[in-house]
Amino acid sequence: MAGAFTIQARDPSSLARAGVLHTPHGDIRTPAFVPLATKATVKGLLPEEVSALGYDMVLGNTFHLHLRPGEELIERMGGLHRFMGWSGPIITDSGGFQVFSMGHGTVADEIKGRAPHGSKGGASSGSEGRSSIGSEARSGAILAIEEGGVSFRSYVDGRVRTLSPERSMAIQAALGSDIALVFDECTPFHVERSYTEASTERTHRWLTRCLEWHFEHGPAGQLVYGIVQGGVYEDLRRASARVVAGSRCDGIAIGGSLGDSKAQMYEVVEWAMRELGGAHESRPRHLLGIGEVDDLIRGVELGVDTFDCAMPTRLGRHGCALVPDPANRWRVDLVKGRWREAPEPLQEDCPCPACSRGFSRAYLSYLARAGELTGARLLTLHNLTFIARLMAELREAILDDRLPEVAAAWRDPEKPLPP
Amino acid sequence: MAGAFTIQARDPSSLARAGVLHTPHGDIRTPAFVPLATKATVKGLLPEEVSALGYDMVLGNTFHLHLRPGEELIERMGGLHRFMGWSGPIITDSGGFQVFSMGHGTVADEIKGRAPHGSKGGASSGSEGRSSIGSEARSGAILAIEEGGVSFRSYVDGRVRTLSPERSMAIQAALGSDIALVFDECTPFHVERSYTEASTERTHRWLTRCLEWHFEHGPAGQLVYGIVQGGVYEDLRRASARVVAGSRCDGIAIGGSLGDSKAQMYEVVEWAMRELGGAHESRPRHLLGIGEVDDLIRGVELGVDTFDCAMPTRLGRHGCALVPDPANRWRVDLVKGRWREAPEPLQEDCPCPACSRGFSRAYLSYLARAGELTGARLLTLHNLTFIARLMAELREAILDDRLPEVAAAWRDPEKPLPP
Repeated sequence: MAGAFTIQARDPSSLARAGVLHTPHGDIRTPAFVPLATKATVKGLLPEEVSALGYDMVLGNTFHLHLRPGEELIERMGGLHRFMGWSGPIITDSGGFQVFSMGHGTVADEIKGRAPHGSKGGASSGSEGRSSIGSEARSGAILAIEEGGVSFRSYVDGRVRTLSPERSMAIQAALGSDIALVFDECTPFHVERSYTEASTERTHRWLTRCLEWHFEHGPAGQLVYGIVQGGVYEDLRRASARVVAGSRCDGIAIGGSLGDSKAQMYEVVEWAMRELGGAHESRPRHLLGIGEVDDLIRGVELGVDTFDCAMPTRLGRHGCALVPDPANRWRVDLVKGRWREAPEPLQEDCPCPACSRGFSRAYLSYLARAGELTGARLLTLHNLTFIARLMAELREAILDDRLPEVAAAWRDPEKPLPP
Repeated sequence: MAGAFTIQARDPSSLARAGVLHTPHGDIRTPAFVPLATKATVKGLLPEEVSALGYDMVLGNTFHLHLRPGEELIERMGGLHRFMGWSGPIITDSGGFQVFSMGHGTVADEIKGRAPHGSKGGASSGSEGRSSIGSEARSGAILAIEEGGVSFRSYVDGRVRTLSPERSMAIQAALGSDIALVFDECTPFHVERSYTEASTERTHRWLTRCLEWHFEHGPAGQLVYGIVQGGVYEDLRRASARVVAGSRCDGIAIGGSLGDSKAQMYEVVEWAMRELGGAHESRPRHLLGIGEVDDLIRGVELGVDTFDCAMPTRLGRHGCALVPDPANRWRVDLVKGRWREAPEPLQEDCPCPACSRGFSRAYLSYLARAGELTGARLLTLHNLTFIARLMAELREAILDDRLPEVAAAWRDPEKPLPP
């Protein structure tokens, strides 16, 4: 579908652009972060709350929704939008990441560049997004990876299930998402170059099959994004970007292993972006599973239009809040003892329910330690507010031709923004 | 404190009355249900949401808040109201029920009339209120019950703690609650009459000590409720009611074992209420840990002014919703298969977020089965809405002199209310 994306402004100092992405259920102002509604809800929030935070789109997951409650049920209930009460755009991930995470064990850690089977933990529970794989998916078992597709055992009922390019597209059609992602093999970090190469080529063949299925059977108006793989190898990444760009997909996602450091991740993303035509490619681009503050800023500078990540919501459920503190990765861990008696709010000028109602860090710390739902909810609302403000400011900055100053101010809040 | 309670109307056909209870943090319109904020939050809800549902007061718990985060911390943070962001009245339970639940093992089941160690379960997790004891408290261990007080091991950190009449009142003073309950021994159902008698007498001695401590050290304006014990023995109940009524307490709570059937529970409550002067006693009365729909209606008819119970909130977290269906105890268990494909909302005319936004039973059932926080929250909001509407209608009915018709309509929604 041509014309799904309108670029409104470009930043002359980088590859960044601001635009509007048009979908059957409305527009997404970009650059934008997309909160996860993996299992048909942003955990703990009502749709109207997500919308009020400034988010235009949420991300549902084909793998999880296929296993429970099943796309047939959701279709009978009028589709995913109606089922979950979200009237705005929905992007669905294809299930590739989740399926291959079962096969590769700790693929999520590997994608993040951590040593296989040696992850140091951090906020890890839940089963959201590409930024890590939850224990639920890990407790399933992959049975076979073949050219036709992948079979595995369901973590819900133990039954054998199959996902394939056609099956994934059919599920996403039944869900009725506005944007479907093609079914890809998500190559982990620790495998050989030869595996990455063969895997990337299979992903390209699957891209073709996904698009063929979509053009024959897909719902009218649904956009399909191809996925660039290729691991950390420049030639493979660039080749993959060319293949995806040469396909009839409506948008382009960057997936797979992005390296073992932020520097490498930015390099890998930039290879793909340069290959995709820099700031001038007219199709929207999505960076899968990336959502730390510095990564979002750099991603925008590299020309990414949308991002999704479990981080802000998952951190919240584990007692961590986002704050303007780059030295601590913009995070404060409220479970730690030093906040037990802190009367101050999370962030002085924050409009979220936790901060604007004057809840103290001491109270939020207590709720997190006591495992109270209200704590998970308040921190989720705060973290999503933090990320929404970041993205809105980056977008405004591009439109106002002042991205470098705004990005610098977010990277170092100690330095005040020039007037 | 005289004049804390204003009776506005009495129902001529029963002991029911409607009134306004005055506290330092505002008025409570009665009869009223009091949602549990056991651990300084109504689980999953913000204070403004609880208030918007029509609730004037919440109940905090001395035992749990003493163990974590500790009343000293809460006091330093400006008291419980400020700590949890609730500006309305708060009643605090004394901790007696929780402490003795540890000692008596399954006292909660026994109080409900179920056989010791033979409870059939139902929604049981959590640690709210007097209506059952949570696994957390059970995992602690009572070390000694003496005239001076009770020592036990904390479920939070394993340290030995002591509660006594004076200590409980001091904690409730530090919390700054509007209404404090005296520290009582909560006698279980299966013990001998002689134990119940001795225990009730100790509760009376502790009542005196609580009031003495309060009059010397208690915060200005804090109301203190005595607790009527006496098990299921008419003479002991009536004697206990006389002792409590003869004390300088501001209000009267009914606690302890109320029998092994609803009929017996109503009988036990009526003994106490008759002894307390029927509809004409000028002090407010609270029924501890009771909150099923028929029990609330009957309790109002017996002259109870306020109730607290974990039921509506806990049921919600376990996938059960309250609906106008007396044949099924006003409950629908959404986890059951028959609701998996049900497109209808929980209740047609309900203004709660779950019903008014059109979420289907199928969606709520799915969320409950998937263990999603949003499901717990939606059902909590629905159930509290259901109970708030019940209590508001009973109150209006008393004021309008039509309680019998309104009560009959709630008891049997098939029979339409006469005009």
